[in-house]
Amino acid sequence: MKQFPYLIPDRTVLIVGMGLIGAAYARALSETGYRVLGITRSQEVIDAALADGVIAAGSSQVDAELIAQADIIVFGLYPAVLIEWLQQNAHLIAPGTVLTDVTGVKGCVVEQVQAMLPKGVEYISAHPMAGRELVGNSKLDVYRAATPDMFRGANYLVVPTDKNTPEAICLCEQLGRILGFARVTRLSVEEHDRMIAYLSQLTHAIAVSLMCCADGGADEADGLARLARLTGDSFRDLTRIAKINDAMWSELFLSNRDTLLEQMDIFIDRFTTMRDALAEGDSETMREMMRSSTARRRAFDKNS
Amino acid sequence: MKQFPYLIPDRTVLIVGMGLIGAAYARALSETGYRVLGITRSQEVIDAALADGVIAAGSSQVDAELIAQADIIVFGLYPAVLIEWLQQNAHLIAPGTVLTDVTGVKGCVVEQVQAMLPKGVEYISAHPMAGRELVGNSKLDVYRAATPDMFRGANYLVVPTDKNTPEAICLCEQLGRILGFARVTRLSVEEHDRMIAYLSQLTHAIAVSLMCCADGGADEADGLARLARLTGDSFRDLTRIAKINDAMWSELFLSNRDTLLEQMDIFIDRFTTMRDALAEGDSETMREMMRSSTARRRAFDKNS
Repeated sequence: MKQFPYLIPDRTVLIVGMGLIGAAYARALSETGYRVLGITRSQEVIDAALADGVIAAGSSQVDAELIAQADIIVFGLYPAVLIEWLQQNAHLIAPGTVLTDVTGVKGCVVEQVQAMLPKGVEYISAHPMAGRELVGNSKLDVYRAATPDMFRGANYLVVPTDKNTPEAICLCEQLGRILGFARVTRLSVEEHDRMIAYLSQLTHAIAVSLMCCADGGADEADGLARLARLTGDSFRDLTRIAKINDAMWSELFLSNRDTLLEQMDIFIDRFTTMRDALAEGDSETMREMMRSSTARRRAFDKNS
Repeated sequence: MKQFPYLIPDRTVLIVGMGLIGAAYARALSETGYRVLGITRSQEVIDAALADGVIAAGSSQVDAELIAQADIIVFGLYPAVLIEWLQQNAHLIAPGTVLTDVTGVKGCVVEQVQAMLPKGVEYISAHPMAGRELVGNSKLDVYRAATPDMFRGANYLVVPTDKNTPEAICLCEQLGRILGFARVTRLSVEEHDRMIAYLSQLTHAIAVSLMCCADGGADEADGLARLARLTGDSFRDLTRIAKINDAMWSELFLSNRDTLLEQMDIFIDRFTTMRDALAEGDSETMREMMRSSTARRRAFDKNS
């Protein structure tokens, strides 16, 4: 059995799934002196990462030898894919290895994963709150767009359960700092999923719905181009995240269904209050909401 | 009767209402060599603008002599205040003067104003799509925050009716260019109000409602501070405009009530479609909306 893999340099980190976040982890860790290995489906990405010196070795197939070498494995996979991968390959992971992930929803993942691991393998869940808009069509485009500056100023959330050891929690927090995140915060699974439903998923659902209202008229492309010329920064800011990876986000929504539905219903309630106040000419209710939103939003200013 | 006041230098422009937009107009025009006069309620703002050389003369009272000197009058007032001001003072405006405004809603203002003017006075409506978040508590704070760089990259909308002359429309468009707006566009009153309901008012109603969902828990301030530490850029971008001048925006909403209600109902419909798809596990409907929003949002990218 390996020793507990404290994050001293010379440790080997295997990244499984070198999408946007996985590839940025690989870059950040190799730049900091760790030995990084990669497993991802795209041979193009493996070739590029090898050529860039981002990984020391890699494969587009599951590779028992790479897995055995890893002190730490980071899964940059969608929730359902992560679980499938572990069902097939968990037996290849040596005792003493610490696993972590980057998935944006925890309730449906963490306990399930923790229950399926071989003895001596610990899984400590994390959520790097970073990303980019859609960055291109090919996996190679995504790899090229994956740079650790995404993590600057961002939050790294560590989401332990009562199955986790203090050592693994500490290692995971250290990983967040090494990756360059501005803040590392510890949250329970429930608190994480409620918070992410409100701050991230509801926000994306709103932006997508608002963008779907855009009426280009008879000649859609022409009408949208005209609207775009008239658009101010507020609308642009609000809809930036309406460019969205539909496969990933629909899975994230479904993985957090009940919690997100709760948040969506609260939003519909508030928005309908505003709508009805307008319909009734009830200026005071509208102003009260505006004053409340102004005061609350002040708490979110970066300098406060 | 004065000559038609083409925007050659040495023309005198009177700004009535030196709030954020009015004051920025005054700065931009005086820097470009026009003689600028100011009428605004705050004596502090008049004193500061005189000291800064932003206006050549000014008053915190309605001043018949200043009004008589103006070739062009720009009203930087809320819609209801503008109409009240003209009811009391339109008789002071000399024939040949061209009036314009900065109000964000046109349907309830333009025809009413055009109907109440003395013979020989023309009103051509404009909407500078620029602004800032709430900038402080005093009128002097607002004046200090009013800088013409707000107009850089922004849209200037000219909203003529069949009462307007080609000369006045042309002068108004020229004004937008002199002020430094990136684009000057001509729109009908109806098109303007529908467009503004979608791009601006609905967007603000959403941001305010979303911010009003923020649940700080038992200790509100503490809870909000914790949420804020976990907040990513998407949420911050989307709620930036939830800091809002409640007096101004509730009036803008009410001034465009029917059109905005229509847009709010379309949004509720789209958002509910997303909500119900999630509730039913209908991944394909969610993904279809996400693909559609992604394609539409691309039309709004600044470089396209």
